[in-house]
This record gives sequence, structure tokens and C-alpha cells, in this order.
Amino acid sequence: MAVGNLLFPELPPLNGVRLGTAMAGIKKPDRRDVVVIELPETSTVAGVFTRNAFCAAPVIVAKAHLEECLSTGRVPRYWLVNTGNANAGTGETGLQDAYASCAALAEHVGVKQSQVLPFSTGVIGEPLPMARLLAGVPNALGSLADTSQAWQQAGEGILTTDTRPKGATVTVAVGDQQVTINGITKGSGMIKPNMATMLGFVVTDAAIDQPLLASLLRETVDRSFNCITVDSDTSTNDACLLAATGTGARIESDEQIAIFRNALQRVMTELAQSIIRDGEGATKFVTLQVNEATTRQEALDVAFTVAHSPLVKTALYASDANWGRILAAVGRAPVEAFDVSHVVIDLGDVRLVEKGGRADSYTEAAGSAVMSQEEIIIRINLGRGEESATVWTSDLSHDYVTINADYRS
Amino acid sequence: MAVGNLLFPELPPLNGVRLGTAMAGIKKPDRRDVVVIELPETSTVAGVFTRNAFCAAPVIVAKAHLEECLSTGRVPRYWLVNTGNANAGTGETGLQDAYASCAALAEHVGVKQSQVLPFSTGVIGEPLPMARLLAGVPNALGSLADTSQAWQQAGEGILTTDTRPKGATVTVAVGDQQVTINGITKGSGMIKPNMATMLGFVVTDAAIDQPLLASLLRETVDRSFNCITVDSDTSTNDACLLAATGTGARIESDEQIAIFRNALQRVMTELAQSIIRDGEGATKFVTLQVNEATTRQEALDVAFTVAHSPLVKTALYASDANWGRILAAVGRAPVEAFDVSHVVIDLGDVRLVEKGGRADSYTEAAGSAVMSQEEIIIRINLGRGEESATVWTSDLSHDYVTINADYRS
Repeated sequence: MAVGNLLFPELPPLNGVRLGTAMAGIKKPDRRDVVVIELPETSTVAGVFTRNAFCAAPVIVAKAHLEECLSTGRVPRYWLVNTGNANAGTGETGLQDAYASCAALAEHVGVKQSQVLPFSTGVIGEPLPMARLLAGVPNALGSLADTSQAWQQAGEGILTTDTRPKGATVTVAVGDQQVTINGITKGSGMIKPNMATMLGFVVTDAAIDQPLLASLLRETVDRSFNCITVDSDTSTNDACLLAATGTGARIESDEQIAIFRNALQRVMTELAQSIIRDGEGATKFVTLQVNEATTRQEALDVAFTVAHSPLVKTALYASDANWGRILAAVGRAPVEAFDVSHVVIDLGDVRLVEKGGRADSYTEAAGSAVMSQEEIIIRINLGRGEESATVWTSDLSHDYVTINADYRS
Repeated sequence: MAVGNLLFPELPPLNGVRLGTAMAGIKKPDRRDVVVIELPETSTVAGVFTRNAFCAAPVIVAKAHLEECLSTGRVPRYWLVNTGNANAGTGETGLQDAYASCAALAEHVGVKQSQVLPFSTGVIGEPLPMARLLAGVPNALGSLADTSQAWQQAGEGILTTDTRPKGATVTVAVGDQQVTINGITKGSGMIKPNMATMLGFVVTDAAIDQPLLASLLRETVDRSFNCITVDSDTSTNDACLLAATGTGARIESDEQIAIFRNALQRVMTELAQSIIRDGEGATKFVTLQVNEATTRQEALDVAFTVAHSPLVKTALYASDANWGRILAAVGRAPVEAFDVSHVVIDLGDVRLVEKGGRADSYTEAAGSAVMSQEEIIIRINLGRGEESATVWTSDLSHDYVTINADYRS
């Protein structure tokens, strides 16, 4: 299942950025499962990674290589992605495999090993099939191209249980120049350790100093990938990378940064939302908007408590305007000295809750009409302060159970 | 669905404790839905209640009445329970209804209104059908009896979506006297705000001062009802009451307290576990035992993170020894400076994880053999300290989605 009928957009070529794919048979034959993204020498690169303590070998290596590049002034020019195997829970062997795959690619193209960042997604706990992966690398390199088609094939090559490739692109004017941001992503949950993970690869042709790039990445990820949840789990392999090739307009003044940040946020948000729309078993795309909180964290806490409630999620699946479940979830959120008589909850344009109970104006018919839609907005005003947060989630369907219960059997 | 084939035990009569039920048609005809529990004048009473900020009207009134009794030296002699309607999210009217139902019962039996504690469970947000409830009260009073059958009927009278009544009883020797503890409970989740809640009513014939009784209740609930989870939600109506009738042995010396605490813990744990065994859609009864934590809270955090993971729960449902999902859930638990290379995870007698990855000795066949059982123990040793915690949970099945998605439709 998936919500809506999103097509992969046409991502324009970016000067000096080439993408290649190969069918290496990592897990299944005849599908793209190795992807290489090549960046020009003029690039700056930043990354954010999963906080899961059991993070996968490629995450450890990608972070180490990125660090090494930053401290030695080198550019991490190659991103090597495989699907079909997460190389997680694989101990010392997994680490050696991740390093060896970087070394192999580096030797082919004549860069330092640390200039290659590895990413893996797929089954946890099985050794990376190194012979097949290494055989795939030269094929992927041989297909490197800067075309829209190459972007689309890379988008397909990073998928696991996703039902469709996910991309986004924005072009904005910065002064008299144009800046483009292309992104691809994969994942149908914050985690599916058996066969998935969230990966995001975003490249712009702007010129941006690394510290600024890193802060823009963190900031926009915090309001996109960190605000989505399918099943409340955090993967061992999650990573989101941002590169600025330096071939186009320079972003440094406050005004330039503001324009670029907006554009980057649009790309990040669109990518993150595309993951939810393709969430495992998703039949609904749900926006949870919490307002009037004391702090943004408080707003996020309430939003995620509702977004994670299996009872709210099953009610969404059933198109049941079961406002009592939303109210109960809000009531158990970790909020200090919570006076619920100030809480107002709207479902789309229909007022559900006010003054600690069901709104007088509420009717089942009005609530059900909103609930039967494929895209639903739940607005929760806490009446405590001025901070807000928005979180996107999907429903909990029979298909979710089927996908996750029947996966390995 | 329910795990195992537990029968309601024969609860022995307790001197001065009478129970009555009525079929008041609160939501459906021809089922016991009003229960009255009568305690002797010599009783002490303690209660713990939901921390949900949107707590229901009867919770507010029961707490207020209990407080009033404690400060005026009165005994809360009557517990009035209805199912079919939670009287939650009902605002000012709901509060008036809760007070009025206590007043009505108090007038029938000639006690102060504050000596009646009200409890409701069922649909949220609909007004309590007061005429039917008030008509049921004299019928319930008319059937008051101290027999085992009366205990069983009370156990049936507090159910909602539960598939079977739940009771426990323990008798222990304290010096040369015997002390009995009887308990009944209901609930198939920590919350099902549409038509449920967790309620527990426990009575002993011992004589125990109220402050000690209150501390024993908190302590044993913390290791029983507060250590179970079906779906991570906390009800608006949860309550657990403990009364000591004062007719039997006095509990005051350290040795007496130790014996009684043990017996009470057995009753509480058995009741709490019976809720999980009857969890919505449950096909597995899962014990999560976390050891070698720095603090008990840390152990609880890890246990609940695993217990709440939809991916772990669907794997349990599928009898899939998907150790990667357990590992990933442990890895995202909120543990400071978490060195996962010290973590050891056992599934029953089978070692799953050690040294940050799959145990060398592990085989799928061994893991699957354990996973196919109806009762499963997952032991997680963190290798950080000496504290432990045990949490009980159920799996996430198609029936859970069916029950919660199709409930109102």
C-alpha cells in the first residue's frame, strides 16, 4: 500500500555529479542494488547518522571517513550504497568488510580510501556478500552518468521494501544565479532492521562552506526526517548526506542563506513525507500539528505520543473519528502540570475536543467525513505557550502486520 | 485470542466483605455491568490511579473521596463500579454524574457520600446513563454476598473486551494466624479508551495501618501493573485499590511485613500477568527480563523500549526469531554512554547476541524452536551494573488491528 500516486520527479543534471548503478545480486538477482554517487573535487559534504547504539558497520566507517576528510582537507568524493544487506550486527567482520569495500572503490578511481563513504541497507546480521559487492563496484563505476535517468536509477537502486523510488528537486534564484538541490531517499519506516533503513542523499550545485553546510543539514533534518514516524523505531543504519558541489552560486550572506535554507527545507520535507506516504501498510498520510506549547520539545513530545499510539493509528486505519483515543494519548504525553481544560483538538476543520471533553459542536458525521480522507490533519492546541511542531505519520493497518510478521517466513 | 487456558480461581470468603452485581443495561442488556464491593467498618484502604492528564471523572471523584476519608478518619466502605461507559471526556456533567452515583448509593446504605468510591470503564465521551445506573444500584446492593460465587460474579461484572474474568488469591501463615488476599482485575491493555481500562480490586483480611498499606500497594503495583504493556497507552481510568479489612492478623513487624509483601506481590503479579495473557489479540505471553543495568529505571527503559517496538511485537506474532529487531530496539533505548559490545541477549535458553552481534553459537533452528512457544522469555544483560527489571507484554497480531480498527464501525 502507499498513499497517493507520487511519481519520481525529473531531477536535472548537476555539474560534476555522476551516478552509477549495478545489479550485483546482493540479495536478489536482476535488480539494481549497488549505487555509486560521484562528487567533484570542489565539493563540501556533511552527514547526520542514526543515534542507535547498535549502529551498523557502514555507519561507523562513514562517520570515521567523513571525520578524516574534514580534518585532512580531503573531499569525500564517492558514496557507495548497497541494498539487500545492512551489514549491521556483524561485529568485527562487518567493519572489515565496510573498510574493504571503500578500499576497493578507492583503488578503481584513484582516491584515498577515506574519500569513499559506505552505506548499507537490508537484512541485519548476515555477512555482506563481499565477492558480489566487489564485482558490482566496477560495473557501477562504468555506468556513471550525470543525466536525469542516472538520478532516477540511483533512486531505484537504494530501495528495499519501498514500493516506489522517492526524489525531490527545487531550483531557486539566489541573486542573479540559480541554485538547484536534488535529493533521493529510501525507507518506509524509521526502522525496519530486517530489510530496510532510512537513507537520504541530497546534492546541490551551490558553494557552501562545510560548517555552514553541516548546520543547515542538521537544522532541516530536524524538521523533516526527524519529524516522521511509521513505527517509532530508529534504524541501525539511518543516514542523511548533503553535498554542495561548489560549482554554482556561493551561499554566505544572511539573505543567501535564508533563501537556500528554505529551498533545502522544501526538498528535505518532501523527501521525508514521501517516506511516510510509502510507509509499510500505509493507507493514510497524517499531519500532527501541535501548537501553543511551552517549548518546541514539548510540542514534539505531544505530537510523537499521539503519532506512536497504536490505538490512534488503528482508528486512523479504520477511518474512525475516535477522538477519545486522541484525547487519551495527549493526556499521557510527558507534559509538566498539564491543564487539559485548555486543550483544543481539531480534526481537519472539525472541532473534536475543548474544555476537557468532546466539543459541543462535534458530530460523528462531521468527524467521519474527515477521517475517511486519505490525507488527514490533526491540530492540537495546548493553550500553554507559543511553540509549535509538526510530525507526519501513517496509520497501523493489517498490511503493516502482514509485512512485518510475514517478512522472513 | 488469549494465551493459555486460565480459569478463575475459587476466591475464599473474607470476613465482612460482600460483593453484589446487577444487570443495569449500561451499554448492553443481559450482562452484569454494575458491581458493588462492601468493606467492614474496620477496614483501611489505599488506591493508585492513572497519571493521564485527561483522567476520567470517576478517577477525580474516587481520589477526592479517598482523601476526604483519610483526613476525617472515615472508611471508604463502598466501591461502585460500572462497565460499558468510562465517564471520561465528559466534562462538568461527568463529574456531577460521578458524585451523584456515590450519593445515591450512600443514601441507600446510610453512609457519607465520601465513603463511596466510583469506578467506570467503557466507552469514552458519552454521558453516563444515570437512570439505568441508579436503577442498578439497589439491585446490586440486594445481591451482596460474601461467597466465592459473589467474587466470581464481581470478576465478571467489571469486564469489558476481556475474554475471561481474572482473579487471584493467596493465603499465607503470619505467625500462628492465616492471612488471605483476594483480587480481581480487568483490562486487556494499559488503555483502550474506547471500551476499556485497567481496574484492580484487592482485599485482604489482615489488619494494616493505612500509611503502610499505601506504601505496600505502590511498591507491589510498581512491580506488577506498572510492568505490563500491551500497546504502550495509559488509560484515562486506570485504578488499583487495596483494602485490609482489619478482621484478621495484624501486619506490623518487619517479619510480618516481609511475609505479607511477598504474598501481595504474588497476587498483584498474577493479576497483572492475567491481563497480558488476555491482551487484545494476544497469541504470545512474553517476559522481558533486563539485568545488569546501572539503575532499575534504566532496566525498565530498555525493557519497555523492546516491549513497545511494533517490529519486535510482529516478529513475536510471526514466531520469527528476528534477533536484529530486538538488538535494534535495545540500541535505541535511552541509555547514556551505551557500550553495546557488553550486551548479551538470550531467547529462552538460546543465546542470540553477544559482542555487538549475533552469537557464534546461534542457529535459526534453535531460535525458531523457542519463538514458536506460547510463553517466551527474552533476557537482556546490559553488562553495566547490578539492577534488574521484568516487564510482561504480548505480541502484535492481526487480531489486535481487527479489534481496535473495527471496534466502533
